[in-house]
Amino acid sequence: MNNCIFCKIVNGECPSYKIYEDDKVYAFLDIACDAVGHTLVVPKKHFCNVMDCDREYLDAVIDAVQKIADHYVKDCGYDGVNIFNASGASAEQSVFHLHFHVIPRKSGDGMRMWPLNEKYDIDLAEVCKKLAL
Amino acid sequence: MNNCIFCKIVNGECPSYKIYEDDKVYAFLDIACDAVGHTLVVPKKHFCNVMDCDREYLDAVIDAVQKIADHYVKDCGYDGVNIFNASGASAEQSVFHLHFHVIPRKSGDGMRMWPLNEKYDIDLAEVCKKLAL
Repeated sequence: MNNCIFCKIVNGECPSYKIYEDDKVYAFLDIACDAVGHTLVVPKKHFCNVMDCDREYLDAVIDAVQKIADHYVKDCGYDGVNIFNASGASAEQSVFHLHFHVIPRKSGDGMRMWPLNEKYDIDLAEVCKKLAL
Repeated sequence: MNNCIFCKIVNGECPSYKIYEDDKVYAFLDIACDAVGHTLVVPKKHFCNVMDCDREYLDAVIDAVQKIADHYVKDCGYDGVNIFNASGASAEQSVFHLHFHVIPRKSGDGMRMWPLNEKYDIDLAEVCKKLAL
């Protein structure tokens, strides 16, 4: 898509630090990284977010995420990974080309993911009635 | 697996607030929720994390995550979702049965996901040399 920075990275118009590539997926280091090795995994075709992504591309993206996570833990000295996605402006998505963040982790790295928020004391039965598929 | 709380939820030994189910995936409300509608999506077969999950189950889990995200945005009044996974103790995984968190979001909900950490000023070319597949 015109003016999409991730489309430009995928097609080589913008430079990137490539971590992995296959026919449907491209992965590169996040230049605004939250951790050493912070990686973005994107479909080569433009989709805004998880909600509008074709299933074959979504499956290809998660398979690539798994390959990268496996490689970081088996080959690169990490102990685990966090995987994040923001879909929608209200979810703090800033680039509107679907991307999964892979954040490699080590014991004692000083990062803290949880909790995201105060714990809620709510009626889960009521919530479930409203949300169940 | 014996003594796995999520296996017990999947097979009905422990109660849960079910959001979605298919032949490979079960989704339910997180009782330690970070937000109203905080949902956990798990494979029905036991895997520890993303690294050790069979591809067919991983694809089924992300497809279910997409269905749930789509439902929350189209049908339940949310504007977006965050998707999280912790794979490995160092990544703050606490239950060792693979699970993806789906956190429904609304504009002005007061949550703040980013940044996870201080921004790093590092040599990405060096990082890329070490990590690329």
